[in-house]
Amino acid sequence: MDLDKLKIARRGPERCEVCLPHGVTVGGGANFTLFAGPCSVESEAQIQETAALVAAAGGRVLRGGAFKPRTSPYSFRGLGGEGLALMRQAADDHSLAMVTEVLHIGQVDLVAQYTDMLQVGSRNMQNFELLEAVGGTGMPVLLKRGLAATVEETLMAAEYIALAGSEQIVLCERGIRTFEPSSRNTLDLNSALRLQALSCLPVIVDPSHGTGRREMVVPMALATRVLGLDGVMVEIHPQPDQAFSDGAQSLDPARLDELAQKLALIPPEAVAEA
Amino acid sequence: MDLDKLKIARRGPERCEVCLPHGVTVGGGANFTLFAGPCSVESEAQIQETAALVAAAGGRVLRGGAFKPRTSPYSFRGLGGEGLALMRQAADDHSLAMVTEVLHIGQVDLVAQYTDMLQVGSRNMQNFELLEAVGGTGMPVLLKRGLAATVEETLMAAEYIALAGSEQIVLCERGIRTFEPSSRNTLDLNSALRLQALSCLPVIVDPSHGTGRREMVVPMALATRVLGLDGVMVEIHPQPDQAFSDGAQSLDPARLDELAQKLALIPPEAVAEA
Amino acid sequence: MDLDKLKIARRGPERCEVCLPHGVTVGGGANFTLFAGPCSVESEAQIQETAALVAAAGGRVLRGGAFKPRTSPYSFRGLGGEGLALMRQAADDHSLAMVTEVLHIGQVDLVAQYTDMLQVGSRNMQNFELLEAVGGTGMPVLLKRGLAATVEETLMAAEYIALAGSEQIVLCERGIRTFEPSSRNTLDLNSALRLQALSCLPVIVDPSHGTGRREMVVPMALATRVLGLDGVMVEIHPQPDQAFSDGAQSLDPARLDELAQKLALIPPEAVAEA
Amino acid sequence: MDLDKLKIARRGPERCEVCLPHGVTVGGGANFTLFAGPCSVESEAQIQETAALVAAAGGRVLRGGAFKPRTSPYSFRGLGGEGLALMRQAADDHSLAMVTEVLHIGQVDLVAQYTDMLQVGSRNMQNFELLEAVGGTGMPVLLKRGLAATVEETLMAAEYIALAGSEQIVLCERGIRTFEPSSRNTLDLNSALRLQALSCLPVIVDPSHGTGRREMVVPMALATRVLGLDGVMVEIHPQPDQAFSDGAQSLDPARLDELAQKLALIPPEAVAEA
Repeated sequence: MDLDKLKIARRGPERCEVCLPHGVTVGGGANFTLFAGPCSVESEAQIQETAALVAAAGGRVLRGGAFKPRTSPYSFRGLGGEGLALMRQAADDHSLAMVTEVLHIGQVDLVAQYTDMLQVGSRNMQNFELLEAVGGTGMPVLLKRGLAATVEETLMAAEYIALAGSEQIVLCERGIRTFEPSSRNTLDLNSALRLQALSCLPVIVDPSHGTGRREMVVPMALATRVLGLDGVMVEIHPQPDQAFSDGAQSLDPARLDELAQKLALIPPEAVAEA
Repeated sequence: MDLDKLKIARRGPERCEVCLPHGVTVGGGANFTLFAGPCSVESEAQIQETAALVAAAGGRVLRGGAFKPRTSPYSFRGLGGEGLALMRQAADDHSLAMVTEVLHIGQVDLVAQYTDMLQVGSRNMQNFELLEAVGGTGMPVLLKRGLAATVEETLMAAEYIALAGSEQIVLCERGIRTFEPSSRNTLDLNSALRLQALSCLPVIVDPSHGTGRREMVVPMALATRVLGLDGVMVEIHPQPDQAFSDGAQSLDPARLDELAQKLALIPPEAVAEA
Repeated sequence: MDLDKLKIARRGPERCEVCLPHGVTVGGGANFTLFAGPCSVESEAQIQETAALVAAAGGRVLRGGAFKPRTSPYSFRGLGGEGLALMRQAADDHSLAMVTEVLHIGQVDLVAQYTDMLQVGSRNMQNFELLEAVGGTGMPVLLKRGLAATVEETLMAAEYIALAGSEQIVLCERGIRTFEPSSRNTLDLNSALRLQALSCLPVIVDPSHGTGRREMVVPMALATRVLGLDGVMVEIHPQPDQAFSDGAQSLDPARLDELAQKLALIPPEAVAEA
Repeated sequence: MDLDKLKIARRGPERCEVCLPHGVTVGGGANFTLFAGPCSVESEAQIQETAALVAAAGGRVLRGGAFKPRTSPYSFRGLGGEGLALMRQAADDHSLAMVTEVLHIGQVDLVAQYTDMLQVGSRNMQNFELLEAVGGTGMPVLLKRGLAATVEETLMAAEYIALAGSEQIVLCERGIRTFEPSSRNTLDLNSALRLQALSCLPVIVDPSHGTGRREMVVPMALATRVLGLDGVMVEIHPQPDQAFSDGAQSLDPARLDELAQKLALIPPEAVAEA
């Protein structure tokens, strides 16, 4: 099938805008939206403190995992339903929209009760039943590219969601798997631009997973901005060294502030045209 | 976690044997088992004719898809429950064991009623809920390596199944994604050997998906044999050019016979030690 | 060997500065240097017109190939020595420094007579004799990362040059080979940051080869700037559609101007710290 | 350019045969040639002892490096000219043909004086001047595929040699670079079959570099045999644990014997048709 026949294909200069509560919008051409939060919800204190930091830095969407997919069955797998409630409260207390991952079709109803946006993770990008189930809710969806998925496959996965009932989809590049061992993944900004060129959907970048190294997150977030993409999603933790998961790639509060300040210094005219 | 602490780790010269109906065994050191069948179940006539060909060639397990995961939502997605029943009948009529894919947790009970062995496909290798659900049945499981999964991740995925209740697991290498465009995937026999060295589980190879080219399937199946691995799984269709899916990589009946004949000519003493 | 024992290792906040004629400097922390020019020198008119465009856009180094490595023996392989002379003249006429590729050890003396900086191309990154020969001249060297070279291998290649006599080395990331077909290569900005973190050498990026698509060159050049790297190298042609080679990834004059204007709009405070 | 227009294209069932001294032939359809020897020539005693082992195991070509390309400038780089002479003597003393690597164009004349076949290594597969220089000698050439070279690029590299004057070329697959860390490289037997299908040249496999693990070399050599390819090249050392380089992937004498015995047990009728 030709990619330009897809429902989500780009058909002109207009770009889709995804709308979330608290007046948050993603895409549409004029926004650059900061998604931030912890890898995992760990406790009420942690998520509240983090949400406050996110709001103070100009973040608009609180991210965080209540159910965590883990390579090893022996790793921490999240607080579950309790985490969802804690995160909802923290988002509301700080006027943030909320996004969290749904791992399987049996979980969609529960997660949908709490969150504003359903995240489909990298490992599930071609879990077609899950794509259809989240699409069937009609809710906004954040679709992360698989770590070995092509641009075409990513667009096809979004098409599953659109066909099932939701065109409020944000695509997220989060690093691919290559031969290079010096960073956790290879952040593939080429493909982020291709996704933007081929679809009308907003495209954001996750430099935390895309690099795996805290000191590279701010630079890559700035790069995402000047590329003309639609936002970034970063991991942040009040004390990254004590994080239950992904501490090495989580920003500390000072670096989150640095990111906010530098982003604000980039004039819109310096940004590439989408 | 150290890989040698896993339940499925290799602990000595003994190797696990997975037992299926009709006296079929996979692994254990003395078997080389041929799994064969169509990509998709298309009709009663097609699956009956195929099962007869498989049995005549010495195949022991009938493979075939009733529910097909497809990159594009616009592609053929299988006959569903009707396909399961047709395939069960064909397997029984020809004294073959049966394996078919289960796509999501909502499907496990249905598929388990019909099949002897539950297949977890490449795209689902890290669908941890599905791994636990199939493990929870206690049935034999065929776990296909993800197309960008490492050996370690593949072993961890098998451990999820084992922890959930089934240690009757067969691992299957089916090609990885690399830069090379001249074959559909890159069949990674190195990793098949590594899986065998690190776990006690039987390891088979799928050269149909691993190469994507019909003329390479017989050579790669022979290679799998001399490597000392435990079996191969091949796609076969009575008229490959009319297959609903994967025709280019399906053997025709003559090539299946050639495979059976050449396999029989390899003396056990010529095979590498596992 | 530990990477921090290398001669070229980073030892503190100071960063090396590579000096070229006409007061051009690369690296050192305060420069962002624009290298631009055609893929191949095609004629006197073409290289003169291009050099004028480069100078007008604020470029400081004229790049271009007189000897071209080509995958097929049947492709255009450059003007050779005549191209060197034409390019030298054009660089001098527009007060630009000059860099051009040297393909083998038998060519080093000839190329060194004309150019200010010797380029070692991607395919030659581990041609150790060539590395030693260019290092032995004591001249500035531009070392392009191989398309499947790791960061560590790239640093080791630079070390060969340094040991042979030149520490005036600029590293250049130009895209790696991955599974993704939608762009010519995958521009690996992660590794550009790692090269910068691990060595004192200036690091630049070539988004023309790194993307293979003209419309992605300006965005990626802007990204390179905010990452805190030391420069970009872009291909430009007065009429890209008539270029002898690499037309699809060459900027036209309007896009080169756009790049210069947007770069000028990024305030230094918005750039990530190296 | 269409691949079937190349001089080296396959044009029918006939396959080229490369002839070496001592009546050794590679390719042609009826041979399976064993190339064996140390990674590096280390001393007269070592190369003599190794050559005796190779001859006793039915090997026909002695391989070994006198000039070694090394990632780090601080590693052992071979005995040089002295190594060539020692290796020539050992080959003659045991009626073996000899192949050794030539690293750069300045070395061609010297190496050609000693060896029967010039090897172009992986890192030099697209060193086009070297390809032309070795082709210009008219001697047999062993061309190793680059670790990220496509099948098409490999064929184009061989075409450079053929155009320069030698069509006595043997292609060698030796592993590609992928994301998988559990073996040194990923042996890409798919592409070995593709090289054979697209060209008339003999194709051999180097499982020592292709796996990096001694215990995988014999299995992969057997696999190469049943695939219908033209030979294998393996590293062997009298005491692998004391090898100056590549000890972990070198066979010990017992394993070389095992390889010879198992190869002899595979009947020609069990081998796939080329």
